[in-house]
Amino acid sequence: MSPEHPSVGLAVIGAGYWGPNLVRNAQATPGMRLEYLCDIDVARARRVIGDYSTVRAVGSVEEVLADPAVSAVAIATPPASHYSVAMAALEAGKHVLIEKPLAPTFEEGQELVEVADRRDLVLMLDHTYCYTQAVQYIRDLIRSGELGDLQYLDSVRINLGLVQRDVDVLWDLAPHDLSIFQSIMPADVWPIAVAAHGSDPVGAGRACVAHLTVKLSNGSMAHVHVNWLSPTKIRRVVIGGSARTVVWDDLDPTQRLSVYDRGVECADPDELGADARAATIVSYRTGDMVAPAIQDKEALRAVMTELVDSITHHRQPMTDGRSGLEVLALLEAASTSLAEGGAFKPIRDLRTGNVETTLLRDEVLA
Amino acid sequence: MSPEHPSVGLAVIGAGYWGPNLVRNAQATPGMRLEYLCDIDVARARRVIGDYSTVRAVGSVEEVLADPAVSAVAIATPPASHYSVAMAALEAGKHVLIEKPLAPTFEEGQELVEVADRRDLVLMLDHTYCYTQAVQYIRDLIRSGELGDLQYLDSVRINLGLVQRDVDVLWDLAPHDLSIFQSIMPADVWPIAVAAHGSDPVGAGRACVAHLTVKLSNGSMAHVHVNWLSPTKIRRVVIGGSARTVVWDDLDPTQRLSVYDRGVECADPDELGADARAATIVSYRTGDMVAPAIQDKEALRAVMTELVDSITHHRQPMTDGRSGLEVLALLEAASTSLAEGGAFKPIRDLRTGNVETTLLRDEVLA
Amino acid sequence: MSPEHPSVGLAVIGAGYWGPNLVRNAQATPGMRLEYLCDIDVARARRVIGDYSTVRAVGSVEEVLADPAVSAVAIATPPASHYSVAMAALEAGKHVLIEKPLAPTFEEGQELVEVADRRDLVLMLDHTYCYTQAVQYIRDLIRSGELGDLQYLDSVRINLGLVQRDVDVLWDLAPHDLSIFQSIMPADVWPIAVAAHGSDPVGAGRACVAHLTVKLSNGSMAHVHVNWLSPTKIRRVVIGGSARTVVWDDLDPTQRLSVYDRGVECADPDELGADARAATIVSYRTGDMVAPAIQDKEALRAVMTELVDSITHHRQPMTDGRSGLEVLALLEAASTSLAEGGAFKPIRDLRTGNVETTLLRDEVLA
Amino acid sequence: MSPEHPSVGLAVIGAGYWGPNLVRNAQATPGMRLEYLCDIDVARARRVIGDYSTVRAVGSVEEVLADPAVSAVAIATPPASHYSVAMAALEAGKHVLIEKPLAPTFEEGQELVEVADRRDLVLMLDHTYCYTQAVQYIRDLIRSGELGDLQYLDSVRINLGLVQRDVDVLWDLAPHDLSIFQSIMPADVWPIAVAAHGSDPVGAGRACVAHLTVKLSNGSMAHVHVNWLSPTKIRRVVIGGSARTVVWDDLDPTQRLSVYDRGVECADPDELGADARAATIVSYRTGDMVAPAIQDKEALRAVMTELVDSITHHRQPMTDGRSGLEVLALLEAASTSLAEGGAFKPIRDLRTGNVETTLLRDEVLA
Repeated sequence: MSPEHPSVGLAVIGAGYWGPNLVRNAQATPGMRLEYLCDIDVARARRVIGDYSTVRAVGSVEEVLADPAVSAVAIATPPASHYSVAMAALEAGKHVLIEKPLAPTFEEGQELVEVADRRDLVLMLDHTYCYTQAVQYIRDLIRSGELGDLQYLDSVRINLGLVQRDVDVLWDLAPHDLSIFQSIMPADVWPIAVAAHGSDPVGAGRACVAHLTVKLSNGSMAHVHVNWLSPTKIRRVVIGGSARTVVWDDLDPTQRLSVYDRGVECADPDELGADARAATIVSYRTGDMVAPAIQDKEALRAVMTELVDSITHHRQPMTDGRSGLEVLALLEAASTSLAEGGAFKPIRDLRTGNVETTLLRDEVLA
Repeated sequence: MSPEHPSVGLAVIGAGYWGPNLVRNAQATPGMRLEYLCDIDVARARRVIGDYSTVRAVGSVEEVLADPAVSAVAIATPPASHYSVAMAALEAGKHVLIEKPLAPTFEEGQELVEVADRRDLVLMLDHTYCYTQAVQYIRDLIRSGELGDLQYLDSVRINLGLVQRDVDVLWDLAPHDLSIFQSIMPADVWPIAVAAHGSDPVGAGRACVAHLTVKLSNGSMAHVHVNWLSPTKIRRVVIGGSARTVVWDDLDPTQRLSVYDRGVECADPDELGADARAATIVSYRTGDMVAPAIQDKEALRAVMTELVDSITHHRQPMTDGRSGLEVLALLEAASTSLAEGGAFKPIRDLRTGNVETTLLRDEVLA
Repeated sequence: MSPEHPSVGLAVIGAGYWGPNLVRNAQATPGMRLEYLCDIDVARARRVIGDYSTVRAVGSVEEVLADPAVSAVAIATPPASHYSVAMAALEAGKHVLIEKPLAPTFEEGQELVEVADRRDLVLMLDHTYCYTQAVQYIRDLIRSGELGDLQYLDSVRINLGLVQRDVDVLWDLAPHDLSIFQSIMPADVWPIAVAAHGSDPVGAGRACVAHLTVKLSNGSMAHVHVNWLSPTKIRRVVIGGSARTVVWDDLDPTQRLSVYDRGVECADPDELGADARAATIVSYRTGDMVAPAIQDKEALRAVMTELVDSITHHRQPMTDGRSGLEVLALLEAASTSLAEGGAFKPIRDLRTGNVETTLLRDEVLA
Repeated sequence: MSPEHPSVGLAVIGAGYWGPNLVRNAQATPGMRLEYLCDIDVARARRVIGDYSTVRAVGSVEEVLADPAVSAVAIATPPASHYSVAMAALEAGKHVLIEKPLAPTFEEGQELVEVADRRDLVLMLDHTYCYTQAVQYIRDLIRSGELGDLQYLDSVRINLGLVQRDVDVLWDLAPHDLSIFQSIMPADVWPIAVAAHGSDPVGAGRACVAHLTVKLSNGSMAHVHVNWLSPTKIRRVVIGGSARTVVWDDLDPTQRLSVYDRGVECADPDELGADARAATIVSYRTGDMVAPAIQDKEALRAVMTELVDSITHHRQPMTDGRSGLEVLALLEAASTSLAEGGAFKPIRDLRTGNVETTLLRDEVLA
């Protein structure tokens, strides 16, 4: 931290499942100064902080927001409270790092983005996976053209998970997959419609198993399988391309990424007549597999560094409010599909808030 | 083979991918006498038979069907020819073992079932997986009540597969999963509707990646993911129950089945008021996992034995024509869903051929 | 911590690879009060402690030992300094928790044990693995008789490891395996001789790959393979018994323990004549495998708890000085074997310090 | 097979565990004509041949050797009979393919080699693994220099195996590992001494668990762990080099070979003074892993092809009698070490039959 850039004073709000990780990583981030851990249950906040810390444990968000030493807050409260806590923080002039999902509804998310824009504050989503070495490697592979044309995406995220009280399994887990897809997708491919199927076989009052299919603008398909009831844990993303296919197994620390030089190729249908199309010539390629050496750094450290850096340099973070909105648009359409029998639903246009199928990602991300 | 039951004379028709396996297993089955391997490409049939065999390689189905030494045929020709070859065989008074799918359409399948019934001939589907030790173990686990209530089924069947010329990936691979589900499903649970999503990212002229969701009568969901483009091979079926969950990994010969005593339990919603339902009490159970010792026998041997036995004892085989029809009904509904945008489609009633959502499995199987 | 038992004041000495883990776990242990982290490189100690801690970072062991608030020290310095630091601590009247190996030589280790005994202080080895749920489960399995007679032990501990400056791979890694064996061994089986083979293919000046074979008193054999040069990491212990065999794969968090009901059985040779012995009747048993549900707690937390508890209740810890001496006796014999061509060397008698082959474990542990 | 080279008439002798594989592969090998399967238990031979074969099942070796249509025999009888059956075949002027080990003793093996030489007959060892794609790939990797200097070899071959009646686990399983090592070893590295440790914890009358350490001429070490009592099956060979390390997991059909660009490097000790040597500078390299695409062909097919080819072209086969003798020399030295307490034993000189430590592989293989 150069003298011109004094430390960013941070308060973490929420001492539940994720809060302790934010606390630990904030403490290890240069350029950041952790001031508070805040939770309604202040005893819980104290336990998280421990007996040896100089960080203050408090119970009142107001107290935190009133402190001028705090210039940013990291919000890890339950989803239902995201909007109100984030709005209070922005109105108090604080930068905001927020857990997914950005807000309970698209409209509330949009309001947060607008307020942050108007007040010139950083609004950043903690899409942690987007900061892993794996996602960065895959993004480079796609953007460099090495993967070839995107053919399919497939993500399985299942385990014996906590059945949440205020969100279903789609809203709890799929934001991870959707933000990963967003982060690696080539610039000329974007989601146009989504369908979701789900079930609640344990009588939890909300979907505990769900499948989500996203139609992409290039005709390919992305699929997400999320499940709170699986006795085994799987965190596996496959990205199929015309030249390479990547398998990301996040639970295998010795070989998280496998890049396969294997695939199926068809003769170009445009060069064949209509009749010939049915008899396309298919060829198979079976080459080596490469497991690239990637460093095993904690992604949340990079999240904290991006927060400090975007505040300090007055720029949009990589996972900004709009990326959170994009995820919300997909989740809302998925929920509609789920409620209405599983047919594809178009995805809301981020510029107008209208439901349009012609979402142009270039304009959205511009 | 007792003297009253002379050997069943068999001809295998089709010397392509699967035919050689039928030939090998037929030769090793007591009570069966392999007479012919028949293929339009008779040189190919000769190569399969090899230089040391007394089995005859022929090119004409008519020749085979005219031979009174042949009492049964095993049909492993491409799907498009299943109906015509099977019908010719039945009309020639031969018992029939047929590869999946039974026929190209439900109506043709129904005709085959009717003709076999009328002529009192065995019509058996080679639903090979149903004869594995794994499926038999799972079926027992479910029927004995040890699994508890069925909560979800999930099957992933992906690899770098042969892009077929006359069927898409759903018709090529999903019959395996659907026949497995059929074989293990409790008697009081049956499929009521199906939705399918698919894509053809390589321009093959038909879906190469597909997801199929089946709504079951007890409110739970079965899902099938089939993919011809995956560089890695997965054959994994998960059956979630309220008391146990079974994972069947068919590619792990050292531990094909894993039975987990893990799960999520909710307080009975019927005992709670409407408001309380949103706040159901969830508890988690984390017990041991047992990998049962199961013998590693070739399933196709058991298929052949069932064929001999059902012919000899004049009874329906375990995977009879109706089980093939049930799979056809699901595949047709899935194709309709795929063509019409992915919404759920009801499954055709097997008794009437009408599309009805109120299919009663009990009556069908009666 | 009851009022009669005030907190145990602890200083951690050594801020290298392992020290930070001791610091973290000490802070989370009830009944313990972490006072200092001490390292010659005090800046390093400060970095480990971080910017938010009330724990003091210091550079002088003398300062720490002079503080009456410190009643115990945890020593994580390089092996060569273990004896001098531990002796200074004991002489200052402090209880000692020490990393393996206890001391550079058996004689020095013996001195430490004697001084601790004389001054009535706890001398405890941080044999961390002995405090895992896995080792406790295996020990119970053996002691309850469920494993049957011990037939063999086999441990593989290989990875791309740090080539140490003051110890070879045997002294660096094998103490883990030897202390695990010690912890689970039935009371009537003990090591009687050891042979070691090693090589230094990278010119490091000490063995980087080594194999260690321990003859046990019941005629069976324990084997340890340690390797600093392996590109893949394996931590796998197999304990074969006449009734069960346990495989402990410490790198598989989803299935660390697998208990197999499989084995080979011979007819009792005592019931057969001398000639018949060559033709013993062997039978095979292939039963289920059970992966017990074991909690995934950090073992070092249990080490800290045992330290507090043994100090508070004035008792020997589970991994006391004598267990460290036993490991030293094995390591010294192994080094002798390594230097002298790989033949078996008897293990030193712990009571007399003499090399004897008739070491009676019962007397040693009494 | 060109007209000048009529088919090689083959008889397989022994219809036990391995014989059926020889039969199957012989039938599929161009240029070979399988005439007989011979076993003392002729009914067993008939069962192996099956009901559809034109191959003759016989009970008398003499009958087979008397038939001029037989120009070669493949011997798969129990090890104790290898010498007598092979000698009879050679004396009858037949080429010989023989299962490992070549003979019960080195002297007998030597006699077989001499007789075959004198009578100008092919004497080939069925060292099946040497004909796998994996071994060929590894050999190329070593000989091309890509692996760098050989640092260590490590092979684990364990499972719940058949306790043999006439050989211990070393003679039963280690020939696989020793012939693999022989096949891939660089030309300037050869074995100079061997030590073996073993135990018989089930009272089988022979070692059921064994460890074998081979000192190589370049100072590195090869280690083999064989075990008949393991409930899990492992077939894993690691070859460590200064530039690459290969892991061959023969039980993972999807990734048999993994080539790691990882390792430890020390500064050259010759460039450092004596004192500096203790403080050698070590550096670590962590690069990508490549799993090469290798075809999954049955190795025994390549064995048969090599037999035909070496007979037809009148040349030594890749795994000739001398390679079998080399394995025998290692096994005999290992047995001596096992009997005499585990110290290293020099390996017998193949030229003189004397025990010499200065075996020059170049001369042996010349």
